[in-house]
Amino acid sequence: MKCFQKEIQLKPHKRGFHLITDVVLNTIPELNEIKTGQLQVFIKHTSASLTINENADYTVRTDFESHFNKMVPENAPYYQHTYEGSDDMPAHIKASLLGASIQIPITNGKLNLGIWQGIYLCEHRNHAGGRKLVITAFGI
Amino acid sequence: MKCFQKEIQLKPHKRGFHLITDVVLNTIPELNEIKTGQLQVFIKHTSASLTINENADYTVRTDFESHFNKMVPENAPYYQHTYEGSDDMPAHIKASLLGASIQIPITNGKLNLGIWQGIYLCEHRNHAGGRKLVITAFGI
Amino acid sequence: MKCFQKEIQLKPHKRGFHLITDVVLNTIPELNEIKTGQLQVFIKHTSASLTINENADYTVRTDFESHFNKMVPENAPYYQHTYEGSDDMPAHIKASLLGASIQIPITNGKLNLGIWQGIYLCEHRNHAGGRKLVITAFGI
Repeated sequence: MKCFQKEIQLKPHKRGFHLITDVVLNTIPELNEIKTGQLQVFIKHTSASLTINENADYTVRTDFESHFNKMVPENAPYYQHTYEGSDDMPAHIKASLLGASIQIPITNGKLNLGIWQGIYLCEHRNHAGGRKLVITAFGI
Repeated sequence: MKCFQKEIQLKPHKRGFHLITDVVLNTIPELNEIKTGQLQVFIKHTSASLTINENADYTVRTDFESHFNKMVPENAPYYQHTYEGSDDMPAHIKASLLGASIQIPITNGKLNLGIWQGIYLCEHRNHAGGRKLVITAFGI
Repeated sequence: MKCFQKEIQLKPHKRGFHLITDVVLNTIPELNEIKTGQLQVFIKHTSASLTINENADYTVRTDFESHFNKMVPENAPYYQHTYEGSDDMPAHIKASLLGASIQIPITNGKLNLGIWQGIYLCEHRNHAGGRKLVITAFGI
């Protein structure tokens, strides 16, 4: 079994959905030593998340932000956890709806993604620092 | 470490939630060579997804479709990504809410699912072709 | 490759979101034999789920319960699967929104979580028994 792992800190991103596929790939060139396996990308935070979605038209990412703001609104009357700002509790909920990690199959030394798939950093806070990722590739 | 991987194309499914546990199991009989490990099923698309839920009463799957259509409506006034049809942008959002992959433990050569758990293909488009899956089983 | 797996039954929890990080860690002390790898926690049920979120202020978990009850209401007029009680169909939908498993990187014999991250059991039923988990740690 081969297992490679890197930990990085992204540059800060503004609130919204951002393509980071290239950052992930550049971080772990050892991926090409794995014939069959899995890549995991994990985010070490509870107010940002990761997902896989369309890598082309940027309006898809804009619409994600619009819809998540509607589906998980700020200042809901039932929120009790409010002392970190109106964007904080929605950020926690959005983070769990999307998830803290993605897992992608590796085939012949490459990510086996569909042609339209990219990796999104989902930044749910208004003013966050650079987020930390743990990137692990394993297989044979 | 053992690692087996297959890529298949499902037959087209109509919009909705569909049980595909048997298709997955039939694709990767090598599963029975793994005593302890994990199975990953990954979908190579951004407008369909995978989840695990109840494998018995079909009205559970009908209610999933009804609720996701309510929670992620078509023609929301804030959508900008509209040129691929009214079902397209909701499909992208639903896909990320449910996720592009599932991971299931393998125990003694079998999927270690609960008795009521099955694998769902979640087809979010009105007229999609057969979706491609990458199925990877690894362990010892 | 090392691969350790345990199956446990949690004590019953009331409806809501509960921190179970310590239970998971105590179940699989063999984690410290893995230098680089992944831990998976899988729940064998379709009306409870797992997620990773803030491990400090309990009002975060209270607000999760409030928001999920709003986003996936009981007694929606379009539910057909109603014979198991008004909390049943919402429980299935919440379970798929959050997911049946979490995957966390292992680094130097420990879970590589962010400082604020903990593992939540998400109990979506009013009166459920103890939930079964399969905990798998693998790596080198």
